[in-house]
Amino acid sequence: MDFINFEAMIDSLLTIGGQLLLLIIVYLIVAPLGKRLVASSIQQVAKRQKLSEGRSKTLENLSLNVFTYVLLFFFIVTFLGILGIPLGPILAGAGVVGLAIGFGAQGLVSDVVTGFFILIEKQIDVDDYVTAGGHDGVVEELGLRTTKLRGFDGTLHYIPNRNIQVVNNHTRGNMRALVDMSIGYGENIDEAIRVLQNVCDQFTSDERLKEGPDVVGVQSFGSSDIVLRVIAQTEKMEQWAVERDLRKAMREALDEEGIEISLPHRVVLNKDE
Amino acid sequence: MDFINFEAMIDSLLTIGGQLLLLIIVYLIVAPLGKRLVASSIQQVAKRQKLSEGRSKTLENLSLNVFTYVLLFFFIVTFLGILGIPLGPILAGAGVVGLAIGFGAQGLVSDVVTGFFILIEKQIDVDDYVTAGGHDGVVEELGLRTTKLRGFDGTLHYIPNRNIQVVNNHTRGNMRALVDMSIGYGENIDEAIRVLQNVCDQFTSDERLKEGPDVVGVQSFGSSDIVLRVIAQTEKMEQWAVERDLRKAMREALDEEGIEISLPHRVVLNKDE
Amino acid sequence: MDFINFEAMIDSLLTIGGQLLLLIIVYLIVAPLGKRLVASSIQQVAKRQKLSEGRSKTLENLSLNVFTYVLLFFFIVTFLGILGIPLGPILAGAGVVGLAIGFGAQGLVSDVVTGFFILIEKQIDVDDYVTAGGHDGVVEELGLRTTKLRGFDGTLHYIPNRNIQVVNNHTRGNMRALVDMSIGYGENIDEAIRVLQNVCDQFTSDERLKEGPDVVGVQSFGSSDIVLRVIAQTEKMEQWAVERDLRKAMREALDEEGIEISLPHRVVLNKDE
Amino acid sequence: MDFINFEAMIDSLLTIGGQLLLLIIVYLIVAPLGKRLVASSIQQVAKRQKLSEGRSKTLENLSLNVFTYVLLFFFIVTFLGILGIPLGPILAGAGVVGLAIGFGAQGLVSDVVTGFFILIEKQIDVDDYVTAGGHDGVVEELGLRTTKLRGFDGTLHYIPNRNIQVVNNHTRGNMRALVDMSIGYGENIDEAIRVLQNVCDQFTSDERLKEGPDVVGVQSFGSSDIVLRVIAQTEKMEQWAVERDLRKAMREALDEEGIEISLPHRVVLNKDE
Amino acid sequence: MDFINFEAMIDSLLTIGGQLLLLIIVYLIVAPLGKRLVASSIQQVAKRQKLSEGRSKTLENLSLNVFTYVLLFFFIVTFLGILGIPLGPILAGAGVVGLAIGFGAQGLVSDVVTGFFILIEKQIDVDDYVTAGGHDGVVEELGLRTTKLRGFDGTLHYIPNRNIQVVNNHTRGNMRALVDMSIGYGENIDEAIRVLQNVCDQFTSDERLKEGPDVVGVQSFGSSDIVLRVIAQTEKMEQWAVERDLRKAMREALDEEGIEISLPHRVVLNKDE
Amino acid sequence: MDFINFEAMIDSLLTIGGQLLLLIIVYLIVAPLGKRLVASSIQQVAKRQKLSEGRSKTLENLSLNVFTYVLLFFFIVTFLGILGIPLGPILAGAGVVGLAIGFGAQGLVSDVVTGFFILIEKQIDVDDYVTAGGHDGVVEELGLRTTKLRGFDGTLHYIPNRNIQVVNNHTRGNMRALVDMSIGYGENIDEAIRVLQNVCDQFTSDERLKEGPDVVGVQSFGSSDIVLRVIAQTEKMEQWAVERDLRKAMREALDEEGIEISLPHRVVLNKDE
Amino acid sequence: MDFINFEAMIDSLLTIGGQLLLLIIVYLIVAPLGKRLVASSIQQVAKRQKLSEGRSKTLENLSLNVFTYVLLFFFIVTFLGILGIPLGPILAGAGVVGLAIGFGAQGLVSDVVTGFFILIEKQIDVDDYVTAGGHDGVVEELGLRTTKLRGFDGTLHYIPNRNIQVVNNHTRGNMRALVDMSIGYGENIDEAIRVLQNVCDQFTSDERLKEGPDVVGVQSFGSSDIVLRVIAQTEKMEQWAVERDLRKAMREALDEEGIEISLPHRVVLNKDE
Repeated sequence: MDFINFEAMIDSLLTIGGQLLLLIIVYLIVAPLGKRLVASSIQQVAKRQKLSEGRSKTLENLSLNVFTYVLLFFFIVTFLGILGIPLGPILAGAGVVGLAIGFGAQGLVSDVVTGFFILIEKQIDVDDYVTAGGHDGVVEELGLRTTKLRGFDGTLHYIPNRNIQVVNNHTRGNMRALVDMSIGYGENIDEAIRVLQNVCDQFTSDERLKEGPDVVGVQSFGSSDIVLRVIAQTEKMEQWAVERDLRKAMREALDEEGIEISLPHRVVLNKDE
Repeated sequence: MDFINFEAMIDSLLTIGGQLLLLIIVYLIVAPLGKRLVASSIQQVAKRQKLSEGRSKTLENLSLNVFTYVLLFFFIVTFLGILGIPLGPILAGAGVVGLAIGFGAQGLVSDVVTGFFILIEKQIDVDDYVTAGGHDGVVEELGLRTTKLRGFDGTLHYIPNRNIQVVNNHTRGNMRALVDMSIGYGENIDEAIRVLQNVCDQFTSDERLKEGPDVVGVQSFGSSDIVLRVIAQTEKMEQWAVERDLRKAMREALDEEGIEISLPHRVVLNKDE
Repeated sequence: MDFINFEAMIDSLLTIGGQLLLLIIVYLIVAPLGKRLVASSIQQVAKRQKLSEGRSKTLENLSLNVFTYVLLFFFIVTFLGILGIPLGPILAGAGVVGLAIGFGAQGLVSDVVTGFFILIEKQIDVDDYVTAGGHDGVVEELGLRTTKLRGFDGTLHYIPNRNIQVVNNHTRGNMRALVDMSIGYGENIDEAIRVLQNVCDQFTSDERLKEGPDVVGVQSFGSSDIVLRVIAQTEKMEQWAVERDLRKAMREALDEEGIEISLPHRVVLNKDE
Repeated sequence: MDFINFEAMIDSLLTIGGQLLLLIIVYLIVAPLGKRLVASSIQQVAKRQKLSEGRSKTLENLSLNVFTYVLLFFFIVTFLGILGIPLGPILAGAGVVGLAIGFGAQGLVSDVVTGFFILIEKQIDVDDYVTAGGHDGVVEELGLRTTKLRGFDGTLHYIPNRNIQVVNNHTRGNMRALVDMSIGYGENIDEAIRVLQNVCDQFTSDERLKEGPDVVGVQSFGSSDIVLRVIAQTEKMEQWAVERDLRKAMREALDEEGIEISLPHRVVLNKDE
Repeated sequence: MDFINFEAMIDSLLTIGGQLLLLIIVYLIVAPLGKRLVASSIQQVAKRQKLSEGRSKTLENLSLNVFTYVLLFFFIVTFLGILGIPLGPILAGAGVVGLAIGFGAQGLVSDVVTGFFILIEKQIDVDDYVTAGGHDGVVEELGLRTTKLRGFDGTLHYIPNRNIQVVNNHTRGNMRALVDMSIGYGENIDEAIRVLQNVCDQFTSDERLKEGPDVVGVQSFGSSDIVLRVIAQTEKMEQWAVERDLRKAMREALDEEGIEISLPHRVVLNKDE
Repeated sequence: MDFINFEAMIDSLLTIGGQLLLLIIVYLIVAPLGKRLVASSIQQVAKRQKLSEGRSKTLENLSLNVFTYVLLFFFIVTFLGILGIPLGPILAGAGVVGLAIGFGAQGLVSDVVTGFFILIEKQIDVDDYVTAGGHDGVVEELGLRTTKLRGFDGTLHYIPNRNIQVVNNHTRGNMRALVDMSIGYGENIDEAIRVLQNVCDQFTSDERLKEGPDVVGVQSFGSSDIVLRVIAQTEKMEQWAVERDLRKAMREALDEEGIEISLPHRVVLNKDE
Repeated sequence: MDFINFEAMIDSLLTIGGQLLLLIIVYLIVAPLGKRLVASSIQQVAKRQKLSEGRSKTLENLSLNVFTYVLLFFFIVTFLGILGIPLGPILAGAGVVGLAIGFGAQGLVSDVVTGFFILIEKQIDVDDYVTAGGHDGVVEELGLRTTKLRGFDGTLHYIPNRNIQVVNNHTRGNMRALVDMSIGYGENIDEAIRVLQNVCDQFTSDERLKEGPDVVGVQSFGSSDIVLRVIAQTEKMEQWAVERDLRKAMREALDEEGIEISLPHRVVLNKDE
């Protein structure tokens, strides 16, 4: 092999270096500027169209998200272009390596496709309480690739969108509160229903309730108890508080009327040895 | 590299900008107009053919759904065409990226294919009570990609159609109510069956019932009880109410006749130490 | 770009519209006519060959099914052909989109292939009681793509054929009734077997039974009981009724003979503090 | 477009119709004839080679199976050939549709490949008692695509061969009977083993047994019992009957010797309030 | 179409028939001869190299296995070649059918690849006691495609090698016996450990033991008992017998020393009503 | 074949050997030097930008990680190039072997893609306490391919990034402490709530707490107890200590006030035999 | 066909046979020689670099592993080359068979890729105690394809590397010992904590302990007990012995102080019939 032409090499390196520097400077200026521009324009649109705060936050996050990835994509392509590495043909004709990349990256595509439809079909908004990908929580951020939920215990769940198969949104419309009270087999069923219905009637004026609580009847027979079911329709996110209040009130009402709770019973046939 | 021809660039940008503006304006006019047109024509057809409200709502939702996606598709293709990016060849010859997209998007195709057959085979109508994709609920909306169910507790489930494997439709024909009553081992089986059958006979005039409740016999032996089974055929969605009423009536009848409930028994052999 | 030739366009649209109208009219005439023709010819064949009602219903449903899909296929191809869109080449050369469709649609092909073999191997007939795809029920309809089962509780299950892996057909030949009776550890095993066998002997004349019930012996030792097993062979679908009758008769026979039921026992060693 | 040449069309249709008719007639003659020929020649081979009945039935079923599918294949290809549709090129060059079919049909190929090896490696014979694909039963028929098992309760299981991963054949060689007897903690272990071994010795002359039952020792300590294990080697399919007989005999022997059964014990420390 | 040249056809059929006959005759001679040759040569090699019987049986089985499949492959190719059907090009250019076969047959390839490595890495020998593919048993035969295990209850398991993911070989080196003895909370722990260690010391001279049994200490606290653990290292396959002997000896030693077994305890606070 | 030209071969071998030696020497110099350079430059950046220690450690690890793999890649390519084996074309045109590699290596690509997004979206930092890939632990190192977690019991978990689907980060914001206290059915609910709230009030000044503990009400009815729930918001990682302290304080407060704990109750109906 | 030229055939066979013989001889010489060479050179490197014994054993095993597979590969290629079968083109152009092989062999590639990274990232060393692929054990050998673990009961687990998803290495750094002691509800919590802490303090001088055991507080409330937790940090592999010693010492300390163990309690409300 030949001697290496050091001068030419250094010249070429300097030229490339300069171009890369320019690229990075441009990127560092465009990125924050663009983000601020996107954010403010979304906010203006939201104000004019009187969007709810949740939806406008969602839109802002999403726009910034798309903006960042597109910018990054152009940055990488330009960067490689300056270095003389054309990304397109490489990817298109990459054979085995390409095959591996194609398979490995399908998860990413799957994330984006799923994320796109979650957003366009408005399945989730920021601040909704949802179940998705096996986790419950309040939505903190919606992205094309990842959705962030804040769990009840404070944990932050990062869920790649492809892991979101079925979305259960608990903040779309009213919720239902459900309380099961069990009484002993010796008690009078009609009397117990009457007592519970009385408690229910006191709750109807509660503004958290949309459809007054009602005793629907005998739900099942346990090994030592009869289970009576009470249901009500409540404002979203208020169902747990309503259930707790109903439980306390009903328990106290049954106690007052002397209707016994159903502790586990056992009939014992004693034999002495 | 050359100096950039700014004038030509700006000219070209303006032309493109104008075309895009025109496209957006057309879209903003066509979209709502088209939707109203589709909705009203479906309603007229539904009236003329005396379709049930559920089916007509389904048809309307579906038509709007298809209309929206087709419009969006043409909008994106035209948009990219104006920018000089032909979508077809890109997708067809995209190599590795295309492979990844192909794999990632197969879920979407799977959604649409499944959704198409659910609709054409009339497996689900709006307002049906169904089990699909692991969730129970009343159908709120049927789409080519997603089906929305309203769960009993008020949660709204968004189910991508590919997740719907087997559809269990609980509102196609009559349902069956089933009540198990358990009596102690000491009781007379024939007597107990007679008492329960009496209760059943009182229910036969109930208009919610299609086939009077009947005691079918001794279902099983528990560790301390004999289980008798009663079944009936009811109007759809009335099975739970019927079961609750049957349970209450039978419990009271057995109490009246002095037929004991089967509390858990235990034989204890005492040894003192 | 050029000015659009409106006249030519309208002409062409009218021509296409006329052809489409003709196509739709032909379709609306051919579809119901063909269905009636297919149905009646199947019924004649069934009568001549004295097929069971179930099998003839199956054949009729299947034929109508195939007829409908073939007609639909030709309708769509012709429709697209009139619009100047050749479906074949599009599908064959569709690149990435085609790949996605190919993957997404494999479920459909899988349905049809499985459905075809279920039908040709006569695994299922209409009115059979089967377990398939995780659901029990009586077959209401057999199709190339979907099988419909009516569950015991009245629910209608739509099962895509690909979800049917193993078919368990409970109506091919006789079924077996199985009853386990448990007696206490203190009882004489031989005596108990004699009593149960006596009951069995009374059942042998029952015409629902193909092979008289027999006590096969000591099946297992529970924590406080000895389990004796009785088995019988019955007409299909009669096994549950036979089991219920056997259970009642055996329970009463043991009571008469004073052979005690095995309630859960416990030896208690008392220590006072 | 042109006027249609009705005469030529009718001529051509008649020719094609005649050929199809001929094909169907040939098929209806060849199919039953060929089946009888295949069956009888297999039976002769089986007689000459003194094959067991099970194996000869297997061979017969398989041969008929292969014969039927091959005939069907040639029938379909000829049928399509007469209609001018060459099946080969269509399948080879089918693009997207072909891809979907290729994926969808892989299950079928998988069935045949697995079925082929199950047969060639003689894993299963007709009348064997096996566990395969999650179901127990006696083999009724072996096919290239499906295996039919008759379950204990009479259900007929159709198992596609691909679902058969591991075959557990319970009729290849002797089986083992296993009985666990539990005694109380107060009993003398050596004494109990002696009593059980005595029972075992009485069974050694039983011709169903290949290796006399033996007490192998203390298997485990339960919460209130000591478990002694007895094992024996039996003729295939006789293991359950042997276990039942052993259980009865041992229970009676222990009773005679006054060795107590281990009912659940509990030490109770009483405190009065 | 032309008249068929019957003479030429018959001639050609006879020629082909003769060749096929010759092929079958050759096959029927070569197959058993080759097998005997392979078997005897393996046995000589095994004798000369003083291989263990298990390993030599493995080698023999494997060689016969490979021999049979290779012969079968050549037989089929020649057979098809005589019939004028070249297998290679068909398979290579088979398009859709080929795709289906490729997917369907991957299981077969996977079997062979896995089988090859199990053999070459000597993971299993004939007569080893192993857990593989979810089944326990003694290896009866090792093949390139299938491994046969004889389960404890006598069942013969046919396991396709692809189902063998992790091999657990219980006959490579010494095994460990483990016995947990539980004593009451009132007992002296040190005393109990001393008694158990005494029993252990008596076992150290047992030749089945490689490392004398030792009491390692307090393993856990149950709801009413303290669990002491004893472990020992034994000859392979002797661990269960050793455990049974240890269990019996320790139980008797504790009884002699009056150290009480821990029956379940319960503190009962009585309230009379 | 020809005689081999030994001289030329040796010459060529020496040349290649020299080049390989040079390559290895260069590698051995560049590798540690480069690592130190990368590490120190990252540290300077971190200092100047005042990054948290965790984030700067993450950045350093990542950079070294990327540096090592890139260097290794160039080393292997050069190495093979000297040996005259061009890696690129081999991989691109490798046919079957390539296919296998492509499939086998997709896991690697999947690791890197997932790792890249975990890093760029800052889902995890070194020293965070997270749940990922089925394991809990403190992050020790973040890499493009593997993430290392130190579990609570000291185990070091190596998790390939593809196994990380959902990341649950327990150190992003405040956590919630949750304590359930159960009281007997006989106790006064209001009184118990008052006592527990008193304890809560004493904790509000605790600086680990962000939102004072509060009794939210009756959570559920057990078989013998009423469950009251207390929740609080705490500093991250302090939730367990807070819960332990709350539990102890509340237990002692209830004891002082004489509010009974709910031991399991049972109603016993005695029958003597 | 022609007459076969027997002479030429025999000549050619002899030539090939000679070459094969030569190849086998060369292989039989090179294989053991090469192995010894590889082993000794690794040992020298290990000595000079003062590597731990585990790591040097790992390196040796790995090198021999790679050496063996490379040699085998060259042997097979040369062997086939002599027989005139070029392996490369066959594999590259193998069509359907190739596809099947490609799919079937991907597991092998996956094994090697995973094995390579486990080695290069030093996740496992010989003699480490790890959990991998669902099995616990001490690493006996690390290979490119398979990892061997010796389980606690003596079983040798052969784990293909692809089955190793997450590696849990229990010998990287200190481990944590954890003991839960439960006391009755009547006991004084502070007193119990004091007693347990005293025991802990006696253990701090134990050299197996890295961070003295400490009582962390009330972990939970059982149905009849209060659970106190003690944790400590220990030398690796000493955690179980430490836990056993702690358990014994604490149990004895509580006994001495008269702090009662929490046997299961039950409140019984007696009713006589």
